[in-house]
Amino acid sequence: SQPSEPSMSTIPLNEFHELADETLHRLQEAVEEFVEDQDVDGADVEYSTGVLTIKLGGLGTYVINKQTPNRQIWFSSPVSGPARFDWLPESEAWVYRRTKAELLRVLEEELEQLVHAKIHLR
Amino acid sequence: SQPSEPSMSTIPLNEFHELADETLHRLQEAVEEFVEDQDVDGADVEYSTGVLTIKLGGLGTYVINKQTPNRQIWFSSPVSGPARFDWLPESEAWVYRRTKAELLRVLEEELEQLVHAKIHLR
Repeated sequence: SQPSEPSMSTIPLNEFHELADETLHRLQEAVEEFVEDQDVDGADVEYSTGVLTIKLGGLGTYVINKQTPNRQIWFSSPVSGPARFDWLPESEAWVYRRTKAELLRVLEEELEQLVHAKIHLR
Repeated sequence: SQPSEPSMSTIPLNEFHELADETLHRLQEAVEEFVEDQDVDGADVEYSTGVLTIKLGGLGTYVINKQTPNRQIWFSSPVSGPARFDWLPESEAWVYRRTKAELLRVLEEELEQLVHAKIHLR
């Protein structure tokens, strides 16, 4: 669990920012619409330069942020805890190397479980 | 690493909010002053209802947030990775049960290491 171990990702910095920003913006829009449509109590979705916060009232808080030195997206979930995702060019997806899980799929499944409604993030 | 395991903390909800808010506000003020005094490149400190974000430019991003269902403060560090702190009444401090580390001490030591200057958070 040492974050300082070198990432295996060789993605260039500008490409990292482009891909990560695109992902975070897409998530922001989709999750904002979702919590509004589903009228989730106490929900609040905020984005600020590289940090997306999804507050789900009593269900807990997600934080999804760029960790630029590692070229990763870090994910903090009230359901599954912390995870760190690298961009895998061959999968064209953010993947948690330890479990091979995809960021968008993980968040989809957890939000559906928490809110009991379908959401499409991929 | 299952966040859903019951916390051993029996702190009442209103007390949790009071203690966590006080801690996050104190950190916000102290770290804002610190990064300004030290002129940390690309630094930005933001607080929004229970989520404190400390961006240190190329050094990485800290996220420190209330995770209310667990009565914990969750901590995501570019130096040490993720950790979860419970309020220990006997210590009057937020403590990571696995390592016995104190939140304020951890952040102090890491910021001093990253920025090469003294900061007092306790």
